[in-house]
Amino acid sequence: MSERFSRYFAETVVLISVEWERERNLMTAAWVIPLSSNPPLVGVAISPLRYTHQFLERSREFGLNILSTEQVELSQYAGTTSGREEDKFSKGIFAVEPPQKIRAPLIAGCFATMECKLADSFTTGDHTLFVGEVLEIKVNKGKSPLLLHEGGYYRLGELLGRYHS
Amino acid sequence: MSERFSRYFAETVVLISVEWERERNLMTAAWVIPLSSNPPLVGVAISPLRYTHQFLERSREFGLNILSTEQVELSQYAGTTSGREEDKFSKGIFAVEPPQKIRAPLIAGCFATMECKLADSFTTGDHTLFVGEVLEIKVNKGKSPLLLHEGGYYRLGELLGRYHS
Repeated sequence: MSERFSRYFAETVVLISVEWERERNLMTAAWVIPLSSNPPLVGVAISPLRYTHQFLERSREFGLNILSTEQVELSQYAGTTSGREEDKFSKGIFAVEPPQKIRAPLIAGCFATMECKLADSFTTGDHTLFVGEVLEIKVNKGKSPLLLHEGGYYRLGELLGRYHS
Repeated sequence: MSERFSRYFAETVVLISVEWERERNLMTAAWVIPLSSNPPLVGVAISPLRYTHQFLERSREFGLNILSTEQVELSQYAGTTSGREEDKFSKGIFAVEPPQKIRAPLIAGCFATMECKLADSFTTGDHTLFVGEVLEIKVNKGKSPLLLHEGGYYRLGELLGRYHS
């Protein structure tokens, strides 16, 4: 199984924002899904090599910011720069919004933001799956979510039907 | 947190195919993501109420069939009919392909198919997260993946940029 299997999924692109002892950080993630309806749980898989991983273990909460189609450059910057080397919030690239239930800042201009409290975490191969309970959600109806697939950023295309349960 | 948070993600739509003691079943799932690069692990969250859940616990393997944009009706049928009531494979709706490493059938006409061996499982709220190691992958380059977002089925739209790591 040498081929990179993960590129064939269509992924929601998010920024995970964290704060611990007045230091803030954020990173791009795309391995993120809902895990439970009641309680509302979301999972995000993060490598232990990432600086954000340490924050999550300590602060036990995070902002989950679903990027909009206008935020490709933010995704690119936050996904390729480490908070160990520079304070990503000091660049004036990210406008922040005040959270209601957590300390970590939320990112402005996103399609949606969710405030999450860490509920659990599991080791899955070379990543840790952090499971967060969604405490607050804000949706920006004027925006459209940013997708990642086979190394490309996309917007949603044609509507092909409705899911009827 | 009364709002249904999960609808704001963009999800890859898959069919999970299973076989146990010569009985086969399949179901639609959209809570699916990569969890590890090495080993290659994928996670899919499935409610214990689903018939497929029992198969997974016993057979400990599954086919992960990433649907193409031409398979909206298959998603709809497999997602709204229970294998407890009818044999979904008996309807002539699903063409199958032989697997290489597992017993569960693979579905023809998909964007990609992955053969997975169960590596782990975790309880996450009202769902079980089944973690599979990807043993085989087949990609149909002529197809495009089917997406689910806010209750609608979509195809990928405009390419907005490339991810450069």
